[in-house]
Amino acid sequence: MTLILGIDPGLQHTGWGIIVSKNNSLSYIDCGTISPSADLRMAERLKCLHDGLTAVIARHRPEEAAVEETFVNVSGSSTLKLGQARGALMLTLSLAGINVSEYSATMVKKSVVGSGHADKKQIAMMVKTLLPASQAKKADAADALAVAICHAHQRTVRKLTAGMKA
Amino acid sequence: MTLILGIDPGLQHTGWGIIVSKNNSLSYIDCGTISPSADLRMAERLKCLHDGLTAVIARHRPEEAAVEETFVNVSGSSTLKLGQARGALMLTLSLAGINVSEYSATMVKKSVVGSGHADKKQIAMMVKTLLPASQAKKADAADALAVAICHAHQRTVRKLTAGMKA
Repeated sequence: MTLILGIDPGLQHTGWGIIVSKNNSLSYIDCGTISPSADLRMAERLKCLHDGLTAVIARHRPEEAAVEETFVNVSGSSTLKLGQARGALMLTLSLAGINVSEYSATMVKKSVVGSGHADKKQIAMMVKTLLPASQAKKADAADALAVAICHAHQRTVRKLTAGMKA
Repeated sequence: MTLILGIDPGLQHTGWGIIVSKNNSLSYIDCGTISPSADLRMAERLKCLHDGLTAVIARHRPEEAAVEETFVNVSGSSTLKLGQARGALMLTLSLAGINVSEYSATMVKKSVVGSGHADKKQIAMMVKTLLPASQAKKADAADALAVAICHAHQRTVRKLTAGMKA
């Protein structure tokens, strides 16, 4: 049994989702979003993301984490902001001693929906199908659960490839 | 007397510099670079930046910090990496309870050289003139000292504007 934390990073809204992987079956534990106030200064917004994630880690004690390599290529400045949020969240996981895997958005989509070109709606629908107990109200939380599912699949593949029991 | 820490963030090389601002005069204390191995995984590289900066903070106990808003707009992926380094460093400062100011590269150049279009050589030369004791061997460390100088100037201006003694 492994508790997996999936994260969809963002400076405005960071989604997180916790699932359990046990004997190749997945079940839903919890999910939510962390939304630092835009009125705060950058360092304080990053601290808010850190505090929120630290609270999630303390509550659920996940053993492994997966972060989506989201890409908002609208502008250099929005990519820089997203990077800052990602950096703060990944550092928080690292300081908590949790191993972090990274997956591209295409990889997450392929793993959850079966196609690298799935849209947000399709992902949310598939997350609900795979984790019936989840009622992710926000898209960010559903995306975070999708990242966790992707990691669960990938680690099973890796373990099978290595000839070990998943 | 105020100890100021300037930072020029980067995932490969983060420059840092410490100066003292006292009665409108500046003096050099220390500088260096933190260079996480590129062989490490992303979360570990960010942890390495955090550990390096934490050691600098423990050694010098700076009261204020300034970070350059550098912009490598070569590609979205390099901007994302730079953002991650920035995010990890700013979170580290925030967790240490140090107030962080941000300055654009143009602002730093204007403040140190007098022109927003100065090149790296001009900045390094001006840093040596303003802080004769500094022998910043690497460009990143010189840039970090330039950010610290910019912050020292700006805080003096702010205090004068507020009718207070700098």
